[in-house]
Order: sequence, then C-alpha cells, then structure tokens
Amino acid sequence: MAKSWATFGVDLHLDPTATSTGVRRGLTDALRDAVRTGRLAPGTRLPSSRSLAADLGIARNTVADAYADLVAEGWLTARQGSGTRVGMGAPPTPLRQWGSAVVPPTHPTPPRRLSSRPTYDLVPGTPDLAAFPRTEWLKAARRALTNAPYQALGYGDPRGRVELRTALAAYLSRARGVRADPEHILISAGISGGLRLLGAVLRARGAHTIAVESYGLAVHWQILDEAGLRTRPLPFDELGANPGQLTDEPGVLLTPAHQFPMGVPLHHDRRSAVVDWARRTGGLVLEDDYDGEFRYDRQPIGALQGLDPNHVVYLGTASKSLAPGLRLAWMVLPPSLMEEVAKAKGGTDTCGVLDQLTLAEFITSGAYDRHVRAARLRYRRRRDTLVEALAQRAPDVHVTGIAAGFHAVLSLPPGTEQSVVQAAAWQGLALHALSFYRHEHALVDPLDALVVGYGTPPDHAWAGAVEALCRVLP
Amino acid sequence: MAKSWATFGVDLHLDPTATSTGVRRGLTDALRDAVRTGRLAPGTRLPSSRSLAADLGIARNTVADAYADLVAEGWLTARQGSGTRVGMGAPPTPLRQWGSAVVPPTHPTPPRRLSSRPTYDLVPGTPDLAAFPRTEWLKAARRALTNAPYQALGYGDPRGRVELRTALAAYLSRARGVRADPEHILISAGISGGLRLLGAVLRARGAHTIAVESYGLAVHWQILDEAGLRTRPLPFDELGANPGQLTDEPGVLLTPAHQFPMGVPLHHDRRSAVVDWARRTGGLVLEDDYDGEFRYDRQPIGALQGLDPNHVVYLGTASKSLAPGLRLAWMVLPPSLMEEVAKAKGGTDTCGVLDQLTLAEFITSGAYDRHVRAARLRYRRRRDTLVEALAQRAPDVHVTGIAAGFHAVLSLPPGTEQSVVQAAAWQGLALHALSFYRHEHALVDPLDALVVGYGTPPDHAWAGAVEALCRVLP
Repeated sequence: MAKSWATFGVDLHLDPTATSTGVRRGLTDALRDAVRTGRLAPGTRLPSSRSLAADLGIARNTVADAYADLVAEGWLTARQGSGTRVGMGAPPTPLRQWGSAVVPPTHPTPPRRLSSRPTYDLVPGTPDLAAFPRTEWLKAARRALTNAPYQALGYGDPRGRVELRTALAAYLSRARGVRADPEHILISAGISGGLRLLGAVLRARGAHTIAVESYGLAVHWQILDEAGLRTRPLPFDELGANPGQLTDEPGVLLTPAHQFPMGVPLHHDRRSAVVDWARRTGGLVLEDDYDGEFRYDRQPIGALQGLDPNHVVYLGTASKSLAPGLRLAWMVLPPSLMEEVAKAKGGTDTCGVLDQLTLAEFITSGAYDRHVRAARLRYRRRRDTLVEALAQRAPDVHVTGIAAGFHAVLSLPPGTEQSVVQAAAWQGLALHALSFYRHEHALVDPLDALVVGYGTPPDHAWAGAVEALCRVLP
Repeated sequence: MAKSWATFGVDLHLDPTATSTGVRRGLTDALRDAVRTGRLAPGTRLPSSRSLAADLGIARNTVADAYADLVAEGWLTARQGSGTRVGMGAPPTPLRQWGSAVVPPTHPTPPRRLSSRPTYDLVPGTPDLAAFPRTEWLKAARRALTNAPYQALGYGDPRGRVELRTALAAYLSRARGVRADPEHILISAGISGGLRLLGAVLRARGAHTIAVESYGLAVHWQILDEAGLRTRPLPFDELGANPGQLTDEPGVLLTPAHQFPMGVPLHHDRRSAVVDWARRTGGLVLEDDYDGEFRYDRQPIGALQGLDPNHVVYLGTASKSLAPGLRLAWMVLPPSLMEEVAKAKGGTDTCGVLDQLTLAEFITSGAYDRHVRAARLRYRRRRDTLVEALAQRAPDVHVTGIAAGFHAVLSLPPGTEQSVVQAAAWQGLALHALSFYRHEHALVDPLDALVVGYGTPPDHAWAGAVEALCRVLP
C-alpha cells in the first residue's frame, strides 16, 4: 500500500517498493508540485526532516536530500532558526526585468520575482553564463544573417544547416581528433536531444538494454529508459568504467575523455577494449564528449571516435563551451546510422537555423577558439584557487578530477555527505552530493563526496562561493 | 511478395498491400535514397513513368507523382526532350556562398552546389522568406541579448522562456481572441513539435485514435501515427469538417480559422458543435491556427480556443508569419494538460533561448505587428494578381480559399490534375496537387485541383511564377 501524507493539504503517495533514489525523486516531485500549484503556500514552514521521515516511514536522509534539492532549485528556503520554508516568491516563475518589454495589462496572473534563489551556486554542469561572449555572438549573428541565402530560413535538412556541419567537421577534426564528414553530422537540441534520437533508433532495432557508467547523469539514463532501454552500469574504478563485462549489449554510453562526474579519463587499455568489443559484437559506443574543450595539466586526450568512426557515435555540445540555452549539440554518426537517426528526428530540422548559422560563423571566424581559450584560462585559475583554498581550509578533503573540465570531486569523511549538503543549503549554497550521480545499480562502493561545479558562478560571486563552501566542509 | 526493381543498381521493394499513397511514398523514398547515396549517379536518365509503372505493376500516375515530388524537391530534373534525370548537383547538399566562412581545406567531401532546384516554387506552406525582416530581427536580437540576465542562458523551463510566453499571451489575446495565461503556454519546435508532445500525452492516457480532417498535412498525420494514434478523417464539405460523426474519440485535430488546404473557415454551427462534443465527452480539440494572422476579405475569425480554453489546445507558429527556420511555435494548453506536456518535453527547454528572447522583444516592441501588416498587404496583392491572371488566362479554372492565408485551391477539369503537375515539373515549376493533401481514408469525393502557395516566391520571381502557372493550366 502506498504511504500517504496529507499535512498542508498535500497528498503524498510514495511507492514502498521504490529504491531510495526512487523515493527521493517521488518526494521531491510531489513537494515541487505542491509548491508550484500553490497547495503549499509561500512562507509555509515544512516539518523537520526527522519528523516527516518518521511520518512517512522512510530514511531521514532521503527527506533531507529532497529538501536540499528543492532549496537548490529555489522552491524552498532553509535558514538556521526558521527551518525549511516554501519560498516567498512561489510559485517560482522567474520573470526578470526585461528590456523594453512591458508586462501587458491584460496579463491574468503576473508572475512574481523569485526570491528564493540560492546565494551561491556550485552545482556542476553549467559554464559561467555571465562570460557568454554577447558582443562577439551578436557580430557573428549579424554577419550570418546578412549573408545567408533566403532559402536558409525555410524548412531545413533534418541533419541541420550544412554551414554548421561543415564548420564542425573541420573544428572537431582539428581540436578533438574526430573523423568527421559534414554528411554524417547531425545537429540536435542538446546532447539530451541526441540521446533521445539514438535511444529511439536502438529500440527500433530491437534493443532492450544499454550499458552505462556507474556514475553519470540521471537525466540521460531517464531519456534512455523512456526510449525503452534499461540502463545497466559497468563496474567502475580509478581507471574509469570497466568494459570487461560488456557482452552482447547493443550499445554503451561513456564519457571517455573526462568521466562525468568522477573526472578520470578512460584508461588507454580500456579505450582499446571498448572499440574491440564494438567491432567484435557490432555494439555501438556513444561517446559523450561534453567538455572536451577544457583540459589543463594533462596531454590532450583525443576522441575515442577517432579510433573507429564506424562503431562510435561522437556527441559534442555548445552547452559547456558557450551556453546550454543555445540548445545546440552535434553527433558525428557512423554512416550506416545516418538515415535512421535523421528519420527519427522527423522530416525537418528541429533546431533554429539562425543560431546554427551564427555558430557556424562564430567557429569559422575564429571567435569560438578565442572564447574557449579565455574560458579555459578562467576555469583553470578558479580550479587553482579552489585547490589552494581547500588545502588551507579543509585539509581532510581530497580533491580529484581536476585535470580537465570545470568540476571537481571533493571526497569527504565517511558518513558526512548529506550533512554537508544540508549545511550548504542552510547557508544558501547550492551543492550536489556525489550520490546524486550514482546509478541505483552502480557497481562501485559508495563514496561520500561532493561534485563541485567551479565554472558556474559569475566572476563576482566566485570568491564568496569558495568561502561558503569552505565554511560547510568538515 | 514485395516487388523489386534493380535497374541502375537500385533495389526497390514495394509492399503490394500498401495503399496507393503508401506505394507513392515508398517509391519516392527509395528513389530519393538512391540519389542521395549516389547509387543513382547525377545525370542518369530514369525510365519513363509508363515503363517503370509497367515494370513494377503499379499505376502510372503513382510513378508520375513520385517523379514530380522529387523534381519539386530538387533531386530530379525534368525537361522536355531529355526525360527525367538525376540532378547534376546530386547528392544535393546545397552549400551556398557563406559570408566570410571558408570551406576548410581538410573537408573530406566538399558538398557541391545544387543545380536542380526548380526555377519557380508554388508549393504551399512557406512564406516569402526573402521578406524576412532581417534588420529588425537583428535589432531585436541585440536588445534582447543585451538586456537578458545571464541566468537566461542556462538550462531552462521546459515551457520556454517566460518573456516569450508573456508576450504571446498578450498578443494572442489581442489578435486571435485566445484566452491565454503565460503559465499555460508552451514553446515547441514548430507545430510538428507540439503535435509530437500532444500525441505522446494522448497515447500515454490510453488513446489509440484521433479524428482529423479529410484534407490536411501528411506530416502531421504521420507524427500522430508514430505516437501510436491512428488518424480517422471526418466527412468534409463546403462548410468544413463535419463534427457530427465525432463520438468517443480522445481528440480531434482541426484548422478552424482557415482549413488547410481547402481554405474554408469552419462554419459557425460546427465550431459550436465541436466544443459541445469536447465538453460532453472530455475529448480534446487541437486547433491548428497556422496562418491566423493573414485574413483579407472576411471578418476576423477568432480562435476556437476562446470558446473553451479547458477543452481546446491552441497551436500557433512563427513559421508562416516569419520563417519556418526559426522553429518556434506555441501551444496554449488547458491547465490540466500542462504538467503532462511539459514532462513529455523532457526536463528542460528544447528551443534555443536567444531566438525566444528575440521573438519576445520583436512582439513587445511592435515590430511583429508591423511585419505582419506588411506581409498581409504583400500576400493580398499577390492573391489579387493571381486571381486576375487566372480569370484572363485560365477561365476554366475555379479559384477558392482565398479570403485568408497565402495559398489558393485551383479546381481543374476532372482527370487533369496529374498531367498539370507533370507539365509544371517539365517547366521547372514546383506545384502540389490537391491529392497530395488528401487522407487515404478521406470522407469526401476526390477533386482534381492544385494547391498554390502564392506566398512562397520572392517578389522578383512572382510574375514569372504566375506566368509559368498559367502556361500549364488547361
């Protein structure tokens, strides 16, 4: 029988057969809905995690995690002395001051300003958006739109604009060692959009499962799951995912250059082993190269795709190098997959052509390289200040995964992960625990750790974010 | 047993149980693939439609239709005296002169310029792209990007940017009588993208069929079909679709303001009947208002959604008013559907935020209204010259559906439809027959007619397109 909680008029149904991850997600969703729809009014004080956990008969940590997630998302606020409350700006539809736009007088329910945004944000996955190269981007947009033939504005090729595919083929070959031909590149709405298409194609080919890493993005696993593919994690150790257990899976999703979130590169022997497996069995390797532009201390690690373009799908994105809001990502596909993937995308392009043309111009004019170089320098400096601050202020915390990208893994003393995340939430610091990225069937011992996204804050908030982080570390 | 044709190295497998529409699509797809992949080399002469039809044991018209489609798409060329040939630019990846972009020297197979584009294009569905307001759009983009908070560039609300939803709520209320609240608007990648989401939601609710109009867009039917919903056409007459036969369908897709492609508005009594049906049965009305901005002689016809926002989903788009390449459309959803549709869209926005912010600015600054007014005047003038030219040059052709939008239906003498389309293809004029838009189970007598998109050509090609059209009419 599902357990139910009806305080505050919120009916909370939890499936007792769900895993702890499932219970946490169910609780988070139900509370978010209650705030969004107004069933939980702004300012309402929530029960303590201890008492709600007791009421529901679930682990206290699960409730604490759900609260922390919702604080990080801005639905709840947590302040010492006043407990956890529904944000005053709820329902949170963050309408900002918007240029010359006027909120129309006929607008029936003017959204209010969200007041519960955390003060500091170290959740990984988002680059420094304040450093988006607005001026250069607008220049590229002007050149692109001025020079585009008018036909470019019509219904387009499902693969995306040829100008962008051509620019990417050259760039990826040069920067990432990808063997790319514009004919076999397809532009998608984020890597998520690409995975949705690949999931549909694998499912249509009869697949039911797909191998993944023990740590990764739940949103990717969910996309594959919704496509009808059960995700099965590979064992994981300090050399990355272990492909030794791959047998007859139709595919495997990996982050070979910089494992997300653990930060290790896939060991050379395992790179070869994965490609051997793919050749032997006809399995497909999905290579998520989300932050391949950003490397610091180590030698460049080229794309796995370069080893075998016929068995590896390369997935890259502008979400980390520029901004997720562009919703522009790309896949370099084995020629044999192109038709099926383009068909799954539908008869026409689904990404706006103006941004595609602008990005093509941005790349070919050299602005992309300049921007990436500047961003690399910024993130490297931040990494150095982070490592230095931690060495001084939190000597018990071990930092790893820092040779590339813009996130780091901070190992914590056993048993402290949740209390640190909770303490951070109280301080208005959004943080993610490593357990957030652990597959429910992960083949690796749990580790108390934080995943710190040091690219996320704007420059002016960086020092404050580091200070807030140091305060909550043991 | 499937029939097969192996001339030119092309294996053509046709399912003998398929409908004529299915055979035509299968043939078109197979030939397009053969050209695209190079199995049919540029310049190759295809067999006559008569001899290929005899080889395959299918109707000659089906082959002629497939050839005409491929000529219109630019894969084949048809010239009197030299038969139907594969375009010389094939595989057609239209790379145009591209600003300051340089085709990189490492580019493995530089795409060649497509030489087989038809000289004139009167295929409906695309506005005059040469009239896209580039300067005004760039100004709006500059204001939008300059004023946007940096957080706007991150992973966003699955409904789309609040600035655009707010601007649309006011605009749709004013211009189309839609009862819209920004909270219940969702931005999608074209109306196709919206239908994909709605199809998934209806299917998840257990639906297996959906009612549609006897004439419409095959691509929409296909999207619904792929979502698992069989499309069942309603009877059709001069008052539009007849909703009298609606019973317990979970939904109906209509173009009430301007039936596509027939051009009639849905009769007042039927508008009421559809809404009554929806209220009585809980069925959902999907209102495709693709060209609601463009009306000429008749009184404005407001959106059906205004009659009952709880049972009608309003679908609008920038594809006709601005350009399909923007891939920006919107749905105004009954509040009860919002969560499910947002969930089907996935955890984040899938449309680029920069174009969303720009369109919001474009609307609120008044530029959208100015552009629509200018476009309306342009299309109205074209319509008048078209009607005048036809009255003089083709008195046997009857023109209908001209009170709105930018396409017209030209009724032809019985039995002449295919020969006119074929003759047009020979002249380098891309045209669609009405039969292209007829559902395979349509409940209306077939009619020989053309659907002429008079918005499509740029101004400089308009007179030539009309002349070419008049030459091929009986």
